[in-house]
Amino acid sequence: MDTRIEKDFLGEREIPVNAYYGVQTQRAKENFQITGIPMSAEPEFVRAFGYVKKAATQANRDLKVLEPEVADAIIHACDLLIAGQYREQFITDFIQGGAGTSVNMNANEVIANLALEHLGHSKGQYQFVSPNDHVNYGQSTNDVYPTAFRLALILRLSAYSEALRQLQAAFFRKAEEFDRVLKMGRTHLQDAVPMSLGQEFRGWGTTIGEEVQRIAEVRQLLHEINLGATAIGTSVTAAPGYPQLATDYLSELTGTRFILAGDLVEATSDTGAYVLLSGAFKRTASKLTKICNDLRLLSSGPRCGFNEINLPQMQPGSSIMPGKVNPVIPESVNQTSFLVIGMDLTVTLAASAGQLQLNVMEPVITYALFTSLRTLENAVNTLRVKCIDGITANAERTRDMVLNSLGIITVLKPHFGYKQCCEIAREGHETGKSLHDIVVLERKLLTQERWDELFSFENLINPDSEKSKEQSS
Amino acid sequence: MDTRIEKDFLGEREIPVNAYYGVQTQRAKENFQITGIPMSAEPEFVRAFGYVKKAATQANRDLKVLEPEVADAIIHACDLLIAGQYREQFITDFIQGGAGTSVNMNANEVIANLALEHLGHSKGQYQFVSPNDHVNYGQSTNDVYPTAFRLALILRLSAYSEALRQLQAAFFRKAEEFDRVLKMGRTHLQDAVPMSLGQEFRGWGTTIGEEVQRIAEVRQLLHEINLGATAIGTSVTAAPGYPQLATDYLSELTGTRFILAGDLVEATSDTGAYVLLSGAFKRTASKLTKICNDLRLLSSGPRCGFNEINLPQMQPGSSIMPGKVNPVIPESVNQTSFLVIGMDLTVTLAASAGQLQLNVMEPVITYALFTSLRTLENAVNTLRVKCIDGITANAERTRDMVLNSLGIITVLKPHFGYKQCCEIAREGHETGKSLHDIVVLERKLLTQERWDELFSFENLINPDSEKSKEQSS
Amino acid sequence: MDTRIEKDFLGEREIPVNAYYGVQTQRAKENFQITGIPMSAEPEFVRAFGYVKKAATQANRDLKVLEPEVADAIIHACDLLIAGQYREQFITDFIQGGAGTSVNMNANEVIANLALEHLGHSKGQYQFVSPNDHVNYGQSTNDVYPTAFRLALILRLSAYSEALRQLQAAFFRKAEEFDRVLKMGRTHLQDAVPMSLGQEFRGWGTTIGEEVQRIAEVRQLLHEINLGATAIGTSVTAAPGYPQLATDYLSELTGTRFILAGDLVEATSDTGAYVLLSGAFKRTASKLTKICNDLRLLSSGPRCGFNEINLPQMQPGSSIMPGKVNPVIPESVNQTSFLVIGMDLTVTLAASAGQLQLNVMEPVITYALFTSLRTLENAVNTLRVKCIDGITANAERTRDMVLNSLGIITVLKPHFGYKQCCEIAREGHETGKSLHDIVVLERKLLTQERWDELFSFENLINPDSEKSKEQSS
Amino acid sequence: MDTRIEKDFLGEREIPVNAYYGVQTQRAKENFQITGIPMSAEPEFVRAFGYVKKAATQANRDLKVLEPEVADAIIHACDLLIAGQYREQFITDFIQGGAGTSVNMNANEVIANLALEHLGHSKGQYQFVSPNDHVNYGQSTNDVYPTAFRLALILRLSAYSEALRQLQAAFFRKAEEFDRVLKMGRTHLQDAVPMSLGQEFRGWGTTIGEEVQRIAEVRQLLHEINLGATAIGTSVTAAPGYPQLATDYLSELTGTRFILAGDLVEATSDTGAYVLLSGAFKRTASKLTKICNDLRLLSSGPRCGFNEINLPQMQPGSSIMPGKVNPVIPESVNQTSFLVIGMDLTVTLAASAGQLQLNVMEPVITYALFTSLRTLENAVNTLRVKCIDGITANAERTRDMVLNSLGIITVLKPHFGYKQCCEIAREGHETGKSLHDIVVLERKLLTQERWDELFSFENLINPDSEKSKEQSS
Repeated sequence: MDTRIEKDFLGEREIPVNAYYGVQTQRAKENFQITGIPMSAEPEFVRAFGYVKKAATQANRDLKVLEPEVADAIIHACDLLIAGQYREQFITDFIQGGAGTSVNMNANEVIANLALEHLGHSKGQYQFVSPNDHVNYGQSTNDVYPTAFRLALILRLSAYSEALRQLQAAFFRKAEEFDRVLKMGRTHLQDAVPMSLGQEFRGWGTTIGEEVQRIAEVRQLLHEINLGATAIGTSVTAAPGYPQLATDYLSELTGTRFILAGDLVEATSDTGAYVLLSGAFKRTASKLTKICNDLRLLSSGPRCGFNEINLPQMQPGSSIMPGKVNPVIPESVNQTSFLVIGMDLTVTLAASAGQLQLNVMEPVITYALFTSLRTLENAVNTLRVKCIDGITANAERTRDMVLNSLGIITVLKPHFGYKQCCEIAREGHETGKSLHDIVVLERKLLTQERWDELFSFENLINPDSEKSKEQSS
Repeated sequence: MDTRIEKDFLGEREIPVNAYYGVQTQRAKENFQITGIPMSAEPEFVRAFGYVKKAATQANRDLKVLEPEVADAIIHACDLLIAGQYREQFITDFIQGGAGTSVNMNANEVIANLALEHLGHSKGQYQFVSPNDHVNYGQSTNDVYPTAFRLALILRLSAYSEALRQLQAAFFRKAEEFDRVLKMGRTHLQDAVPMSLGQEFRGWGTTIGEEVQRIAEVRQLLHEINLGATAIGTSVTAAPGYPQLATDYLSELTGTRFILAGDLVEATSDTGAYVLLSGAFKRTASKLTKICNDLRLLSSGPRCGFNEINLPQMQPGSSIMPGKVNPVIPESVNQTSFLVIGMDLTVTLAASAGQLQLNVMEPVITYALFTSLRTLENAVNTLRVKCIDGITANAERTRDMVLNSLGIITVLKPHFGYKQCCEIAREGHETGKSLHDIVVLERKLLTQERWDELFSFENLINPDSEKSKEQSS
Repeated sequence: MDTRIEKDFLGEREIPVNAYYGVQTQRAKENFQITGIPMSAEPEFVRAFGYVKKAATQANRDLKVLEPEVADAIIHACDLLIAGQYREQFITDFIQGGAGTSVNMNANEVIANLALEHLGHSKGQYQFVSPNDHVNYGQSTNDVYPTAFRLALILRLSAYSEALRQLQAAFFRKAEEFDRVLKMGRTHLQDAVPMSLGQEFRGWGTTIGEEVQRIAEVRQLLHEINLGATAIGTSVTAAPGYPQLATDYLSELTGTRFILAGDLVEATSDTGAYVLLSGAFKRTASKLTKICNDLRLLSSGPRCGFNEINLPQMQPGSSIMPGKVNPVIPESVNQTSFLVIGMDLTVTLAASAGQLQLNVMEPVITYALFTSLRTLENAVNTLRVKCIDGITANAERTRDMVLNSLGIITVLKPHFGYKQCCEIAREGHETGKSLHDIVVLERKLLTQERWDELFSFENLINPDSEKSKEQSS
Repeated sequence: MDTRIEKDFLGEREIPVNAYYGVQTQRAKENFQITGIPMSAEPEFVRAFGYVKKAATQANRDLKVLEPEVADAIIHACDLLIAGQYREQFITDFIQGGAGTSVNMNANEVIANLALEHLGHSKGQYQFVSPNDHVNYGQSTNDVYPTAFRLALILRLSAYSEALRQLQAAFFRKAEEFDRVLKMGRTHLQDAVPMSLGQEFRGWGTTIGEEVQRIAEVRQLLHEINLGATAIGTSVTAAPGYPQLATDYLSELTGTRFILAGDLVEATSDTGAYVLLSGAFKRTASKLTKICNDLRLLSSGPRCGFNEINLPQMQPGSSIMPGKVNPVIPESVNQTSFLVIGMDLTVTLAASAGQLQLNVMEPVITYALFTSLRTLENAVNTLRVKCIDGITANAERTRDMVLNSLGIITVLKPHFGYKQCCEIAREGHETGKSLHDIVVLERKLLTQERWDELFSFENLINPDSEKSKEQSS
C-alpha cells in the first residue's frame, strides 16, 4: 500500500496515500478497536459534521479570523460531506476515549484534505489548510462534537417519527375495520366485560401516537447547543461574537432553529437531553413490548389458545411440526425493545459519569442512541408492514366467547340486582352452562327477544345508550 | 382482641372491632406481606383517595344514582381523610396483586364505616352504606386507583420541586460568593484552561434548575386521568355523564385542572406517564451523581488531593485516624441516586408488563415512585442544608495552581504562536518550572507588568475582553 | 426529655439519658434522613455486629492489647446483642455517608455503654470503656462493616434457601399429582406437541432447585473477609497476629468457616461478592417472573382463556363484576421480581463507584440486598402457601384441547409421511374439523382401536416407548 | 443476478443461484432487518453449528435413521463449516423472531447444499439431502440453537479468559516494579494512611484474577445442554437413545464434556445460565469501571491533580491546548463497561420473557452476550497493551505527599497518645506546617534519627514489624 507520512507532536505515522484522513485519525484507528463499528455507519452523523464545520467557518470568515479563500475551500469540502460523499473516510470506532476528539479530528482532517485538493494542493500540505488551525479554528471537540451529535439526532428523528406515525395510522385503519367485532375485554387475563376489537386496536394507535408527541417535545431540548463554548464553556480561543454567529449560521443552513445555551459552562458538561431522549425511546420500547405481547397472546392457538386474531404468516415456524407458524415479527420487535431498554441504561451510566467541566463518555452515548434509533425505526416499520397491515379477525369465535362467558352477568346487574346475579353466575360456573341457557331457557327470567336486545352489539359496547333509555323511561 | 365478623363471597373473617377497614382489607393484609410498608406511609396517597371518592360521590349525587343522605355521609368521611385523619387505617402492603383493588377496597371500607358512624350506625352495617354499592358506585379500581395515584404524585411534586429550586438558589448564592475565585478548569481530569469557581457553582445551579422545568412538564401528563373509565375503558356501570362530571369535581376540589383522557381504553392500561416521571427522577439522580462526585473530588485531600473547596464537617470520619473528616453528605446523596436509578428500572419493568386491558403491576410502580420521590427530596434538602450552604473556598491555593500550571500557555498562544508555545510548555513539563519563570525571568519574553496584565483575573476568565482590546488596537 | 452531654472533636451533643448510643450515633441520626429505615429493621445485621465485635475483642484480649476486665465487659455486651436485645438502639438510617462509619460507631457506642453498665459505671463514662479505644480497638469501619454485613447475609440466606427448597418441593408434589394430566405443550404461545401437566410443574420445581445450588455457591464468596485489614488493607493499628486470630474466633463463634482474604488491600475496596449475590437474586427473580406469567396464563379465562388450572381464590377480584377472582398472588410475586431486578441495578451502580482504597457506597448495597432478600423470601413463601399448594387442574379440558388440536399430527408423521400429514393438517385448519374425524371417520386411515392406541397417554407423553416397539417389530 | 427457485409451504422465493442458503433463509433475510448484523459476524457461532449438526448426524447414522451416504455427506459439509469456510452464507440478522429457527434453517440449508454438491447434485435438489428431513433429523431449533450457542460461548470464552489472565499478569508486573514506591492511601478521596503503589497495582491484578475464576465457574453451567429435547423437552421425533448419543459425540468432537440436562422440559425453556454469564461480565465491567476511574484519577493533573502516575501518551488530547494528553484508553474501557452493563439488562429482560415451554427471546441474548464478549475482550487487551504496560510512577512526588500529609499522625499515636496527636494534627491543619517541622524542629519530641526510623518505608508499609519490635522490647 502506498503511504504518505504525517506527524503530530507524538511522532510520525504512515497514512494510506489515498486517504483523506490524517495522522490523528490513524492513531485513533489503532487505539480504538472496540465495537468494530465506524462512525461512517451513521450517515447523518457525518453530514452533521459537514454542517457544523461549515457554519463555524462561515462565522470565522465573517469575523475575519480566516482568510476568505481558505474559508471557501473549507466550505466547499463541507458541502461534499453534506452531500453524502466521502463518508467511508470516517473510520473511527464509535466507542473511543477523548470525548470525541478523534471523530472531530477525523472530520477536520478529511475536510482539510478535501479543501487542499480543491485549492490544488496535495493531501497533507497542512501549511495551506490546517485541520487544527483552520478547519477547527475557535472550536473544541467539546462544543463541536455535541453540536454535531444533536444535529444528527434531529436529522434522524424525522424518519423515526414518521415511522411511528405510520404505525399509528395502521392501527387506526384496523380499528375501523374491526369496529363491529365483539370480543371479551380482559383484566388480569381474566374475562371482564365486552368490548370491540376495534377499540383494542384504536388503543394501540393512540398510545403510539403519544410517542410522536413526546419525541417532538424532547427534540426541542436538542436545539439548545453550546457551539462556541470551546474547551470548558468560557469560549477561550473563539473570536468575539463567534458563538452566536456560528449558531445562527447553523440554524440557517439546516432549517432548524438552534439556541445558544445561556450557561455555556453547564451546557458543556451536561448530557441531560440525551437521558431524556433515551428515556423516550425506552418508553416507546416498553409500549411496543406490551403491544407485541398482546398480539402474540390474542393470536395464540390456534386450537389451544385465544385465537382471536390471525397474524400474517411470514415463514414456516417449525421443522418438526408441519404447518406450524409463529408470530415471528412481534417476537423480533419484543427483542428490539429489550435492546433499547438496555441501551437506555448505558446512556444513564454514561451520563452519570461526567466529571468537572466535561463528560468524556459521550461517544458511548452516540453508540447507544444511534443503535436505539436505528433498530427501533426498523422494528416499527417491520411491525407495520409485515404484521399489523395483514391482521385478520376471527369475529365469529370472539363473539361466541363473549356470549358463552360469565363476565356478561354484569349487563344483567341493573335488572336483577347484585345478589341474584351472583347466584346465576355461580350456577354457570359450577355447571358449565351458559348464562343464556340459565336465564332464558331454564329460569325464563327474560324472553329471547329481550335477551337479544340486551346483548346486542350496541348495548354491550355502549352501555350508556341502554342506561339512557332506562333512565328516560 | 375484640372482633366483629364480616363476610364476602369467599367467606367470613374476624375484624378488630375498632377497625374502620373491613373484610377485604383484612384478606389483603393476610395475602400480601411483602415489603412490610403499608399504604399509610404515604399520607398524600390516602388523602388523594379522599379527594377522588369525594368527587365521584358528588357526581353520583348530582346524577341521582346515590341518595343524598348517603352521599353526604360519604362526603363527610372523605373530608376526614382529606384532613389527614384515620390514615393508620390504611394497612395494605404497597406491593399487592389485584392492580390496587385492595387499596381501593381499603378506602371504600374505611369511608363506608366512617359514613356509617356519622349516620349513627355501627361499623359493618353495610346495608346502609356499602363499600361496593355506594362508596364505589360506578367506579372500578382500574380508574380510581390510577387517578388517586396521579393526584398523590401531583400533591407530592410541589414540595419536591421546591426542594430543587432551593438547591438551585443555594448554588447560585455560592456562585456569587465565589465569582472572583480563580481556578483551573479540567477536562478528562487533566488541567485545561482557567475559570472561576463561581462559574462552576453556577453551572450546578443551572443544571438543577432545568430539572424543575422538566418536572413541571412531565407533571402535565399526570393531569390526564381515566376517571369514569371503570373496568376497561368502556365506562360500564358508570352513570351517563359521570366521567366528565367526576373529573370536573376533582379539578374543583384540588385546584388542579384534570383532563379526561380521549381514549379511555388506552388510558386504562397505559402507564407511560409514570415511565416519564421516573425518567425525570433518574435524570436528576444522574445529575446529582455528577455534582456530588465533583464536590468530593474538589474537596479531596487535604494534602494529597485537589483541596479546592472545604465541605462543612458533619461528623468524625474515622475511629483510627484522628481529625479525618469525610464528605459524608455527598456520599449519601450519591447512594440515593443509585437507589432512584434502580427504582426507575423497576418502573420500566412494571410498565412493560401491561397485558390487554390493564396493567396489573401498577402497585409496584407506586412503591417505586414514592420511594424515589421521598428519598430524592430528602437527599436534595440534606445536600443543600448540610453541605452546599457551608462550603468555603481555598482561593489562594486554587489561584496558585492556575499560575503554576502549563495549561495557561493557551493564553500566550495569540502572542507567540503555536510552535513557540509548544516549546515553552515542553520546557515546563520537563523541568518542572513555572511558565512565569521561563517566560519572564529566563527568556524575558514579557515584562512582569505585561505578564500581570495578561494573567489578571479578568483576562483569564473573560478572554473576550483581551481579544477585543487587541482587535481594536 | 432528660439528656446527657457527650462530645467529640466537632463539639457537644445532647443524648437522651436512657440511650445506649452516643454522640456519633446522634450526629448520624441528624445527618442522614433519607430512607427513614433504621438499621434495626434488619435484626441479623445487629446480631452480626455483636459477633464481629466479640471476635475482635477476644483476639485483642488474647493479644494483650485490651485489659481482661474491659474485654470481658465488652464480650458480655456483645452477647446481649447476639441474643437479640437492645436492637432498637440501632437507629442509623440505612443510607448514609461515611461507608458505614455511623453504623460501626452506633455499635461501638451501644456496646461501650452496655459494658459500662455491666461494670457499674454510668453511660458516657468512656474513660473506662471507650467506643473507639476499646470496643473498636485495632478495627476500622472498613473491615468491620463489610465483615458484619457478610455475616448478616449468611445468617439470612439460610431461611431464604429453605424457602426456595420448600417451593421446589411444592412444585414436585404437584408434579406427581398432575403426572397423568395430558395437556398441550406450547412454544411461541402456539400449539406444539402434547405433554403432561406434571412435566410442567416438575420443570418449575427443577428450575427453582437450581437457585438453591447457585445461592450455596455464591454464599461461599461471602466467607472471604477482610477482618484485620483496618483502614486500607495494611492492617495499620491492628496488633500483630490479630487478623487471623479474629477471623478464627469469628468462625468459631458462628460455626461458619471464614477465610481471611489473601490480598487485604484488594479485599477492602472490593464489592464483587455482592454483585454476584445480587445477580443470583436477579436470576431467581427472572425465573419467578416466568413462572408467575405462566401460572397466570394457564389459569386465564375461565371461559375466554386457557383455563387449564385453577389457582386458589384468595380475595374477591372486582367490585363491579360479581364472582370475578384474580391471580393476585402471582401478580404480587411478579412485582417483587421487578423490585429485586431494580435493586440489582442499584447494587451494580454502587459496586462500580468504588474509588482507590475503599468503596464508600456499601451502605446502599446493604439496603438493596436486604430489601431483595426480605421481599424475595416473603414472595417465595407466599407463592407456595397461598398459591401453588392449592392449585387444581382441569384435566378434562386440557385433554380435550389436545385431542382437538392440529399439533398432534406430529404423532402420525412416522405412519403417513410428512406430505400426507401436511394435507390432513391443512384440511383440519381450513374446515375446523378434528384430526380424529378426518383420519378415522372420513378417510378411514386408522381404525378407532389403532387411533386410541396411538393417542393413549403413554404414547403421547413417552414417544420413545412407541418408537421402541416399532423398531423392535 | 441469476437465481433459482425454492419453495416451502408458504410459497416460492428466488434465491441467488450461487447461494448455499435456501428459501427459509431468504425469508428470514426479508423478515428481519433490525440490527443489520448477520450471524456470520460471530465466527464461532457458525462453527458451533457445524459441530452440533455433525454430532447429531453421527448419532442418527449410528441409530440407523439416516442412510450412511447421506450422513457422510452431511458430516463432510459440517467439517467445512468447522474449518471456517462458507461463513458468509450465514446472513440472518442477529435479532429475529422464531427463537432461532431462521439461524437453524440457515445452517440446515447451507449444510444440505454443501452435502448435495459433495454428492454431485445441484443446489436445491433436496429430495437427496433435505435441510429438514436429513440435516435436521430428530432435531428442533429449540434444542439445537441453544446447544450451538452454548458451544460458541465456550469457544469464545477461552480467548476472553486468557485476555483477563494477561491483564492480571500486567498488573502484577507493575506491582513488582512499584513495590518500593511510597504513596498515600486514600479512603473517601481523603488522605488516609501510607501504602505502596505496588500494593495498589497488586490489588487490581488480584481483583481481575478473581474474574478468571468466576468465568471458569459459570462456564460449567454452559456444559449442561438439552440436545435431543427437540420441541419442548419430550424428545418427540428423536430416535430412542439419540439425546445421550448426540451429546457424547458433541463432547468427543469438541473436547468439552457436555452433560445432558436431567429435566429436558425445564432445560428447554431455561435461560438461567446466560443470566449468570452476563452477570459475570457485568461484574468484570464494574471492576474495570473502578480501575479505570482510579487510573484516570491517579494520573490527573499534571499540575492541578494527583499526578502520581503517568499513562502512556497515545494521541494528542486537544486541538486547542498544546501538549495536552488525555487518558483515552481508560476512557474507552469505561465506556465499554457501560455498554456491557446495558447488555446485561437486555439479557435479564429477555430471560424473564420466557413463556410456557420455550423462551423465544434467545436471539437477542446471543446478540447481547456476543457483543459483551467481543467488546470486553477488546477493551481488556487494549487496556493492557496501550495503557498498563507503559505506566510510570512519579515516586518522588508521591513520597513527598506522604511526608507532607497529616495522615501520618497515625504512626505517632502509639508513641504520644491520641490526645497529643490530635493537638499536633490540628496545628498542622491550621498553620499548613508539616508534621516533621512541628514534631522534630519545633517541639523536639523526636530526634531526626528516630523520625527517619519511624517514617522509613518499611515501617510505614509494614507497621507490624515496628510493633513487633516494640512488643518484644
